[in-house]
Amino acid sequence: MTGKLFVIGLGPGSPDQVTPQAHNAVTEARFFFGYKPYVDRLELRPDQQRIASDNREELDRAKAALEMAAAGETVAVVSGGDPGVFAMAAAVCEAVEAGPESWRAVDLEIVPGITAMLAVAARIGAPLGHDFCAISLSDNLKPWEVVERRLKAAAEAGFVMAFYNPISKARPWQLGRAFECLREVLPPETLVVFGRAAGRPDERIAIASLGEADPAQADMATCVIIGSTETRAVPRGDLPPLVYTPRSLAPASQ
Amino acid sequence: MTGKLFVIGLGPGSPDQVTPQAHNAVTEARFFFGYKPYVDRLELRPDQQRIASDNREELDRAKAALEMAAAGETVAVVSGGDPGVFAMAAAVCEAVEAGPESWRAVDLEIVPGITAMLAVAARIGAPLGHDFCAISLSDNLKPWEVVERRLKAAAEAGFVMAFYNPISKARPWQLGRAFECLREVLPPETLVVFGRAAGRPDERIAIASLGEADPAQADMATCVIIGSTETRAVPRGDLPPLVYTPRSLAPASQ
Repeated sequence: MTGKLFVIGLGPGSPDQVTPQAHNAVTEARFFFGYKPYVDRLELRPDQQRIASDNREELDRAKAALEMAAAGETVAVVSGGDPGVFAMAAAVCEAVEAGPESWRAVDLEIVPGITAMLAVAARIGAPLGHDFCAISLSDNLKPWEVVERRLKAAAEAGFVMAFYNPISKARPWQLGRAFECLREVLPPETLVVFGRAAGRPDERIAIASLGEADPAQADMATCVIIGSTETRAVPRGDLPPLVYTPRSLAPASQ
Repeated sequence: MTGKLFVIGLGPGSPDQVTPQAHNAVTEARFFFGYKPYVDRLELRPDQQRIASDNREELDRAKAALEMAAAGETVAVVSGGDPGVFAMAAAVCEAVEAGPESWRAVDLEIVPGITAMLAVAARIGAPLGHDFCAISLSDNLKPWEVVERRLKAAAEAGFVMAFYNPISKARPWQLGRAFECLREVLPPETLVVFGRAAGRPDERIAIASLGEADPAQADMATCVIIGSTETRAVPRGDLPPLVYTPRSLAPASQ
């Protein structure tokens, strides 16, 4: 008898941004796997059980969850944001592909969530209003040369960029190096948004120019958005400026 | 006296994917602007009023909403998906920038939503599990040459791609031309996902290879995802295959 595995996106952190679908999945599951800060967000019943783990053990966590689901349990793997964006859904798919045949029969439901770049963008205006890309700056799973090649290709082609995993204790220099790469392609006045913990009480949203952007403004919980040459800031007196990328491309930049 | 303007993302269409934040904003607003199919999703009270419009009048709609909010009303502009992704948030920012000073003082709250590519990805596995980009195939607001340049840059750099606005009666050839461009860069076995109306009763998710992908499989409500050379499909017997992009890059493709 096979059970069920939910892979749930809890959104950026505010309970107001958790979908009813995610809420219902949490109600239905009995065992919860995930990185501790995400699992700790859940309000569980006495018959539900947390199995928290380190953030870097994604594949092991996926395997443990699949094993339990294949044995007939109703299990959830939880992610912050959206589970399909640099998070647990790909790890679960990898584990299914590499695992025993019985894991392929598990009823797998992936529940999307508001991913960080959307939450940050909404708090500042509409920086992702034109073509954009999402890049993980972590070089744990791909060589740093690939990251640099993608940064340059995206900047040259006029994409706005959202950086996930911009910086951590183990990866202290990557964001600064990414800024250096981009300064070779984009003008110094290009807008950079540092969006931390969007929608949470400890939210901190800051704007800088690429020329003066300081990697120290980011931490693990920050999504960094790099504008294109089209992205602009609209001052609003006492209110924070609106940062947005127009839907149409100005003739000069075509 | 200034009022308030919400720009609300209603998600892909399932009520289960509307966030409490969006729900609360709908409860608070009195006047609702938007493309008719999105405004028609709302269940309004007798004291709330719909002002539906054509999908191509985005800037006019944004101006009308700002004018009403600046006059003291509580107004909402609604989008499907996320309002910051090829939708109304950028149009509202454009209108603020071009409009009278009083519009800059409007209390503007942008409410993010589950955007189409996240909903489609969740239904099929995790195709957006590695670096990806989102491209609008509409050449109403940018020249087609720019679209082609971006497609090639993204494919060559190894990004997965999500296409918004892939096809319409007024833009019948663009998706086919995009496939042709990509066939010059990517192998014919590259996976393509056609994701229509994810999470709705009329959902239709189909997989094809780039070599055989037929633009007729897409309509206006479809988000098309183009895999990278890393993206793979895991067969699951009677269940639909899982399409995902591994988190790590295989050494051969570096």
